[in-house]
Amino acid sequence: MTKKIYTAGLIIIGDEILSGRTHDKNIAQVASWLQVQGIRLDEVRVVADVEERIVEAVNALRARNDYLFTTGGIGPTHDDITVDAIAAALGVGVIIHPEARAILERYYSDKGGLNEGRLRMARVPEGAELIPNRKSGAPGIKIGNLFLMAGVPHITAGMLDALTGTLEGGEPLLSETIGCWVAESEVAELLREAEQGHENCQIGSYPFFRGGKVGANFVIRSTHADDLQSCADTLCDGLSVAGYDFTPGGI
Amino acid sequence: MTKKIYTAGLIIIGDEILSGRTHDKNIAQVASWLQVQGIRLDEVRVVADVEERIVEAVNALRARNDYLFTTGGIGPTHDDITVDAIAAALGVGVIIHPEARAILERYYSDKGGLNEGRLRMARVPEGAELIPNRKSGAPGIKIGNLFLMAGVPHITAGMLDALTGTLEGGEPLLSETIGCWVAESEVAELLREAEQGHENCQIGSYPFFRGGKVGANFVIRSTHADDLQSCADTLCDGLSVAGYDFTPGGI
Repeated sequence: MTKKIYTAGLIIIGDEILSGRTHDKNIAQVASWLQVQGIRLDEVRVVADVEERIVEAVNALRARNDYLFTTGGIGPTHDDITVDAIAAALGVGVIIHPEARAILERYYSDKGGLNEGRLRMARVPEGAELIPNRKSGAPGIKIGNLFLMAGVPHITAGMLDALTGTLEGGEPLLSETIGCWVAESEVAELLREAEQGHENCQIGSYPFFRGGKVGANFVIRSTHADDLQSCADTLCDGLSVAGYDFTPGGI
Repeated sequence: MTKKIYTAGLIIIGDEILSGRTHDKNIAQVASWLQVQGIRLDEVRVVADVEERIVEAVNALRARNDYLFTTGGIGPTHDDITVDAIAAALGVGVIIHPEARAILERYYSDKGGLNEGRLRMARVPEGAELIPNRKSGAPGIKIGNLFLMAGVPHITAGMLDALTGTLEGGEPLLSETIGCWVAESEVAELLREAEQGHENCQIGSYPFFRGGKVGANFVIRSTHADDLQSCADTLCDGLSVAGYDFTPGGI
């Protein structure tokens, strides 16, 4: 029986990533979080703070995925245009969310109160719900299968934490890693054969150089535990026969 | 006079980034390198090791940019399919590049010689040239305005180094950073006004939390040095009048 595979897209919104000024940390943390939810990250796009570019990416990725996440552009300043872009992509208006406004009023009550910039963070596409933000005032935004999160990584992490367990996912993708002090080019044929012999498995080969030595981790991925084990056994047998030591769990 | 703005797209190819297993380092290093070449990074896509997805991303981004870079998928194993995908996108065949083969023969002469996997790294789309790789054997590949680079960051760095100064670029994008221990939501209006008053400038606001204190760096970007300075002066004057200390160069 074929199981449904749940997928997600991710859009990183921000000139600061494209300029190289800020090193993105959200791709890795969203990807790892999705794995645990049984959802596969299908594609990531990094786009500038330009409405038409955000709209294009949103429409492309939401059409082909069960879920779509964005990070960045939901703050108080003029370059924070994610809410407007998402509303435009969905063809809905932008409203002040009363609960978000109340949250911000409380949060800023001892910090000078609400002003025009801060009130921007209560704006949501019409029909949206809020994603709790336990780290700072402004909440994230959920509308349909879209999740709009902050760009600052530790705030993003808090929003992901609030969403944990709330999304329908499929079978988690299982993996086994086998590390080997070998140039991957010496065992390319072995890897190809092991993968071809197990149609539910994919093998990735990730080479590295450490302490002047060449090695690689071979990562086998499958939603089927039995096939995964069989593929790992085949690969380990092949490495043994070829005379290589290997390290289950990876190096 | 309007100056031509040169742009580039970047495609990160690899399941290991989408699974969260590997933290991408290439977006930031390619972005920073492009800035120095006077080329603006317009969009990044991270796609899986699946030919049709690579082809789709390549065709979308090469049509709208002066240059297109890829990282990943040019190694010796079965999951390295970038060359085939690029050839398919361009509608050309794949050939063994004689110079690449010679490089690999030399490189592997004391490492067991060429085998089927290693020879894969001499395969290029028909019509391609090589990008020198000073760190390991296999070269990168240049075809038209496409640049296929390794996924391992220090090898990517070597290939970028080899390309330095060889690409036509425009005026470098200049920037000035002003740091301030202020919640960005307190000065959102100031930022918006400074940007609106200088049509050749963009201001990004990048908040942070450090040592329990809230602050932000305001980055003004422009290809026009005079406008940049004028915009920075306007912003600094505004911050002063509002009673905030600021740090030229950023915090």
